[in-house]
Amino acid sequence: MNANIQNIQKQFTQPGTNDALKIISLGSFGEVTQNMFVYEFAPQGNFSKSQIIIVDCGVGFPEEDEFGVDLQIPDTTYLEDKKDRIQAIIITHGHEDHIGAIRFVLPILGQNIPIYAPKLATAFIQERLIEAGQKARINTYDRSSIIKLDNFYIKPVAVNHSIPDTFHLSIKTSLGVFYHGSDFKFDFFPIDGKHADYEAISRIGNDENVVCLLSDCLGSDHEGFSPSEASIAQNFEYEIKTGKGRVFVTSISSNILRWKQAIEYGKRNGRKVVVVGFSVDKAIKIAQELGYIKLNKEDIVPIERIKNFRDNQLIFLVAGFAGQPTSALSKIVMGKHRIKISKGDKVIFSSPDYIPGTTSGIYKMIDNLAKMGAEVTYGKDEAIHVSGHGYQKDHALLISLLRPKYILPIGGNYRHIKAYQLMCQQLGRSDDQFILPEPDEVVTFRHNRFDTNSKISLRKVLIDGFGIGDVGATVLRDRRTLAEDGMFSVVLLVDTAQGKLIKEPVLLSRGFVFAKENQELLNLLKSEIMEKFREYVGKPMNVEFVRQKIQGHLEESIFKHTGRQPMILPLLIEV
Amino acid sequence: MNANIQNIQKQFTQPGTNDALKIISLGSFGEVTQNMFVYEFAPQGNFSKSQIIIVDCGVGFPEEDEFGVDLQIPDTTYLEDKKDRIQAIIITHGHEDHIGAIRFVLPILGQNIPIYAPKLATAFIQERLIEAGQKARINTYDRSSIIKLDNFYIKPVAVNHSIPDTFHLSIKTSLGVFYHGSDFKFDFFPIDGKHADYEAISRIGNDENVVCLLSDCLGSDHEGFSPSEASIAQNFEYEIKTGKGRVFVTSISSNILRWKQAIEYGKRNGRKVVVVGFSVDKAIKIAQELGYIKLNKEDIVPIERIKNFRDNQLIFLVAGFAGQPTSALSKIVMGKHRIKISKGDKVIFSSPDYIPGTTSGIYKMIDNLAKMGAEVTYGKDEAIHVSGHGYQKDHALLISLLRPKYILPIGGNYRHIKAYQLMCQQLGRSDDQFILPEPDEVVTFRHNRFDTNSKISLRKVLIDGFGIGDVGATVLRDRRTLAEDGMFSVVLLVDTAQGKLIKEPVLLSRGFVFAKENQELLNLLKSEIMEKFREYVGKPMNVEFVRQKIQGHLEESIFKHTGRQPMILPLLIEV
Repeated sequence: MNANIQNIQKQFTQPGTNDALKIISLGSFGEVTQNMFVYEFAPQGNFSKSQIIIVDCGVGFPEEDEFGVDLQIPDTTYLEDKKDRIQAIIITHGHEDHIGAIRFVLPILGQNIPIYAPKLATAFIQERLIEAGQKARINTYDRSSIIKLDNFYIKPVAVNHSIPDTFHLSIKTSLGVFYHGSDFKFDFFPIDGKHADYEAISRIGNDENVVCLLSDCLGSDHEGFSPSEASIAQNFEYEIKTGKGRVFVTSISSNILRWKQAIEYGKRNGRKVVVVGFSVDKAIKIAQELGYIKLNKEDIVPIERIKNFRDNQLIFLVAGFAGQPTSALSKIVMGKHRIKISKGDKVIFSSPDYIPGTTSGIYKMIDNLAKMGAEVTYGKDEAIHVSGHGYQKDHALLISLLRPKYILPIGGNYRHIKAYQLMCQQLGRSDDQFILPEPDEVVTFRHNRFDTNSKISLRKVLIDGFGIGDVGATVLRDRRTLAEDGMFSVVLLVDTAQGKLIKEPVLLSRGFVFAKENQELLNLLKSEIMEKFREYVGKPMNVEFVRQKIQGHLEESIFKHTGRQPMILPLLIEV
Repeated sequence: MNANIQNIQKQFTQPGTNDALKIISLGSFGEVTQNMFVYEFAPQGNFSKSQIIIVDCGVGFPEEDEFGVDLQIPDTTYLEDKKDRIQAIIITHGHEDHIGAIRFVLPILGQNIPIYAPKLATAFIQERLIEAGQKARINTYDRSSIIKLDNFYIKPVAVNHSIPDTFHLSIKTSLGVFYHGSDFKFDFFPIDGKHADYEAISRIGNDENVVCLLSDCLGSDHEGFSPSEASIAQNFEYEIKTGKGRVFVTSISSNILRWKQAIEYGKRNGRKVVVVGFSVDKAIKIAQELGYIKLNKEDIVPIERIKNFRDNQLIFLVAGFAGQPTSALSKIVMGKHRIKISKGDKVIFSSPDYIPGTTSGIYKMIDNLAKMGAEVTYGKDEAIHVSGHGYQKDHALLISLLRPKYILPIGGNYRHIKAYQLMCQQLGRSDDQFILPEPDEVVTFRHNRFDTNSKISLRKVLIDGFGIGDVGATVLRDRRTLAEDGMFSVVLLVDTAQGKLIKEPVLLSRGFVFAKENQELLNLLKSEIMEKFREYVGKPMNVEFVRQKIQGHLEESIFKHTGRQPMILPLLIEV
């Protein structure tokens, strides 16, 4: 354990008269993913001498019309002239949208910044960094840790979520406590017996001045308490038990307690475990090493050896519930995997069916699996999957225990924020105590007051292939046009002196019309191009003027003939 | 009323010894949309003298990766040499996936084919045909009609659905009755008082030999009965009543009874009606003309005059719940409509939130509306929207009343079909009586037996702009590549005799990298191209060989440098 992490008593000074704190979301307020929050403390309000801690460093996922984009990461521009003031990056839990940007951001901000993370997240981060050929200083914290960083005194608070080892952070400063309530729910009956730290939460509420609660709000359009992971046990085991042949279970790869359940019910019903797919394999190996899952060697069957077992002796844990094209499940569905689905198999989707951009893909897989003869069980009414996020009453409980002065919702889109606000109103809280910043606003606290008077400039940083941030609005707009109606290009070799074409126009079309079947249209366009060239050529010839005229004419003519609007690219080359 | 539609008694001959009937789905079995079913009757089994009726003629919607495709229509190739044997197209109800392909198909099959449709569908079809500059012979049928067409004796059977005037068809032939159970539910408490025709259904079950039930199965993964439209009344009115400012309601445009409810609750709470958007305007006009909705002139306020009213005196019925980019609601959300959302407005989504490809768009609209200050109410737990499709018990009831020999599920994807089959098993029916054809299989009935031994060739007929069926696999594949990583083209002017380049290569890239910011990469590629040209040019020069070599090299080099795979188009022009 790092020297910075100590079990020490409260030892904080009383509020400095002019100390100030900024909270900034580098992944934008009002987003579910790409979590990265800056807490910037200014002694005596002097931000040129500020101290910074960062909470989480995760990736986001592209919008559906951001074609070709792999990932999105928070914009760290704000930090670039403040690198030496960054005390640490503190990670709340091991989900990709909280840790996935570390490998992109560390090389920018400095490989020496210490990272604090819970045990499981530490293992996931290390895996990722090794893959990327990077190193980092990671300090592992647990329920009993205190992290003291200059003017920050941080107490991790254990909560429940869809991955073990998830924490909230009580961030104490001379202004009081800022409670970072990242993704969580209260699971009163946790499958691993690890309860949320109700004592710590209520102590903070009772003994501290909680200035602001930053809270996950994703589940706040659901009433009541978020169901316990244990609530699916009976249905889940029933589904596994009643499988007549092979049983396949798919879920979120990092959902280790779900795999733990699947393994347990499988074993209890005479099945050995086959792990299929890189991400599940990695998660289960880490979970075994860290003691989350106990799995004897004889409980596991490598894929190569499955033919030595009867179908009803095997349970497969398969990566790729969301239909990512390179995942194991996708390959199985497309018949590109060594595992072939056949009649008598059962496939259990113990996973969410709504993730932006994936819903249709999930249902297409289910249809195809059913078609291949498998019985497919998928989530309806929280029978075999529950969310890792709190519902209205989880939030009401957290607020009731902490009684913060202000509340700032994070980790949700605007509709979740509004539902959360409504719930706060029903709790009797005033809207004045509700902080609802614009995506790029800075929330500044001074003397228990806050303002959102300043903004930072936040751009989208998109990852495509090896490129970080080099895919911008122009490239995306072009991709949308190309996707919709393809491209039509014409190359004209021009003798500018004579004002003549040296050759017939050379046409090139892709994704627009199939050239072989549309020769008539292409010939028509070719003759129109030559005609327009003659019409506008003039002496001396203005190449750009002619290019524009031909482009304009082609746009009109192609739309008139086809109703389509491909990208039109005339290229006039002077020879 | 057409002479063919008569109220006549059963007058059918006994089963001919060798008569046969084929059922074909021209939009594929196992699809929800593009409904178009062929019933082909062969007297004495002689299919060269067959008689054909068609049930429904609807469009489908493109898959998410079928970029630029507007619509899909059934493939009518099978009918092209049998046009003169088509007796009629019979429409079950006025949804686009049952009527929308008429304007594409009639010009192919013959403008003279009589169409039979219920009153409301007739009006929708006529609207669409007028827009397309076409005419058709449409005969309107109702609950009391019988349609007699040569060897077919057809009795429409009223059922409930999310559009009024929806029918099943009892298609009687010498083989017995084929009951075409298109989209439906049993709504015991219909909002318009129009009950399903339980008498007709039970008479058919009791008195006829029902050979086969073709049944909607879309809702069969839901338990119990599909909730009544009336079940949302209380919540729906509460939402309207509690709106403090303007209230906006969006729903499926053709869902006339939903609009009827919205109007009634609006009026009862002192609000006048503003209709916003082409499709809702059309639907409500038709509904008024046909008497489904009663709306006095003084109940309606044209958009131009809304400023004469206080906010709480207006209810807006808005087209575009699914976020179609050209719809009124989309424009309002993007700030491109004369109606601007402001604080105090309430927007009610009385509509499904899951339609393939639209879910993310719907939630994005909800987020944006909330951000603009509106209170947004959207469907959770069937509180303000119910499905138009039957659930398991609706189906159990229909089967129990009809007691068909065979069952053939239609109108659902494979997962729905499997859920329907499971329900049939629970009803105690044997799998032998369950017909599960491949998408392109022909189901042939003879002597109460069936086989699926023959197939027809079905291709995807995609509509893009004015083009019908001219967007094929190649164009779509190119669009996917272009969407993902754009294109990179290089034009080389070649002196083949000398084996030399006449000019430096001209590069053209779109959607790949932004040229202005990536000059270094483009210069590198340019010099590599020249190098490869020199390496492979040879004498005599083989232009295609050099082109391929350059293409191969560019693919490798671009992937190595960028991790991207744009479409690479080298163009060598001989000068």
